[in-house]
Amino acid sequence: MELEEIYIYGRNPVEEQLTEDPGKVEKIFIRDGAGGSQLKRIRENASTHRIPVSNVPGNKLFQLLGKVNDQGIAALISPVRHISFDEWIAETDAGPETAILLLDQIEDPHNFGAILRSAAAAGISAVVIPKHNQAPVSAAVFKSSAGTAGRIPIVRTGNLNQTIRTLKEHKFWVAGLNPSAERSLWELETGYPVAFVIGSEGEGIRKKTGELCDLHYSIPMLNRVESLNASVSAALLCFEWNRRVFHSGNGRESSS
Amino acid sequence: MELEEIYIYGRNPVEEQLTEDPGKVEKIFIRDGAGGSQLKRIRENASTHRIPVSNVPGNKLFQLLGKVNDQGIAALISPVRHISFDEWIAETDAGPETAILLLDQIEDPHNFGAILRSAAAAGISAVVIPKHNQAPVSAAVFKSSAGTAGRIPIVRTGNLNQTIRTLKEHKFWVAGLNPSAERSLWELETGYPVAFVIGSEGEGIRKKTGELCDLHYSIPMLNRVESLNASVSAALLCFEWNRRVFHSGNGRESSS
Repeated sequence: MELEEIYIYGRNPVEEQLTEDPGKVEKIFIRDGAGGSQLKRIRENASTHRIPVSNVPGNKLFQLLGKVNDQGIAALISPVRHISFDEWIAETDAGPETAILLLDQIEDPHNFGAILRSAAAAGISAVVIPKHNQAPVSAAVFKSSAGTAGRIPIVRTGNLNQTIRTLKEHKFWVAGLNPSAERSLWELETGYPVAFVIGSEGEGIRKKTGELCDLHYSIPMLNRVESLNASVSAALLCFEWNRRVFHSGNGRESSS
Repeated sequence: MELEEIYIYGRNPVEEQLTEDPGKVEKIFIRDGAGGSQLKRIRENASTHRIPVSNVPGNKLFQLLGKVNDQGIAALISPVRHISFDEWIAETDAGPETAILLLDQIEDPHNFGAILRSAAAAGISAVVIPKHNQAPVSAAVFKSSAGTAGRIPIVRTGNLNQTIRTLKEHKFWVAGLNPSAERSLWELETGYPVAFVIGSEGEGIRKKTGELCDLHYSIPMLNRVESLNASVSAALLCFEWNRRVFHSGNGRESSS
């Protein structure tokens, strides 16, 4: 897997990025022993936006950047803009045409990228990912999304279960995709804001997260196939929702 | 990519495989200069089933097999059974619940495997692949299909366009997935045997193949997304067909 990470370096560039567009800063590296008032401001600003800061030996910066005047600091820039769940929910006015995905431990960058692409294409409002146990939106994910990852808000949360509880307080229904659910995806209900939980291919949705779901849907399958590729399951869900909300629901009429 | 190729070797084992289950023999390797009546029969039998035979130096067999008593012959075995299009069409009694996929240059093994998995799960009757410009059903494809590749006939053809003409003579409608088609996939017609053509992600369906299609469908997309992952497009198609044929079509009732 080729990862083309993008770094910026130097004190002014990093401070400017943090001020102008902190949502794209993945991580900051500061050389051991480097100090001064500007680095102090950068550390404070990073802390405000919950951006991790690593203290590293000088040769680590050299490995990342090559021979440049780095002034003891570098920042890893994401190709997409992240926002926190708190920010997102505060600015969202959810209605019957609002659907979001909650990804629970999607670790394969190809699947993650394909899910972002399908979600953007189906008009999903946001994709929520946990900060842990989830592939970051790396350059590889961005590539797998065919560059569409930047067209949908990527919302990060520290605690998926708490996020589900908050979504319910905001009138969202929460539905999980679960191979053993009796209700078929082809009976998907719409008409209210909904959050769909997508579990990992191997493990599915974690138990506690599954218990928090109001509804579960399964994809009816033939030939003893027990599951589908995670990006395929997510796409079938996104487009079934899209079809019902934007294309008159029953599939006989189309408004496209 | 890890490819765990399976080889059998020795004259009796290879001849027996060719007699009992030639559909799984991908390719035969014979050591330069090796001869005899049994090898002659094997060559003739391979030719009958259109299985390629390569004459190779002895160290090539050693590379493939290690130090074994190979008797100058090895056969690469596929994890799935292939049949030729002529055989398949001869034994098929197509009706309104018959749909097949025709893959046109799907080269990525992950996509190919995921397509086989979705097709099997959706009750597609067969997947037709061209002998050239198409990933073979390798161990990697089999793995990406989560082992489901063996649950759907994989039909090989030397000429996709000729296959389309023959399918039409057998009352199949031929429909292509095409991003610029006016007709939406959510208006999919069913009620007759249908062959769906899936093009490669980059190139789409080739021009001449596209012209042979009776119908074209597009997947309506938002946010300026222009295409989806090939395995995602194929899955949306397979399950839209499945939903209409096996789940009462309009999506309100389900018979699963």
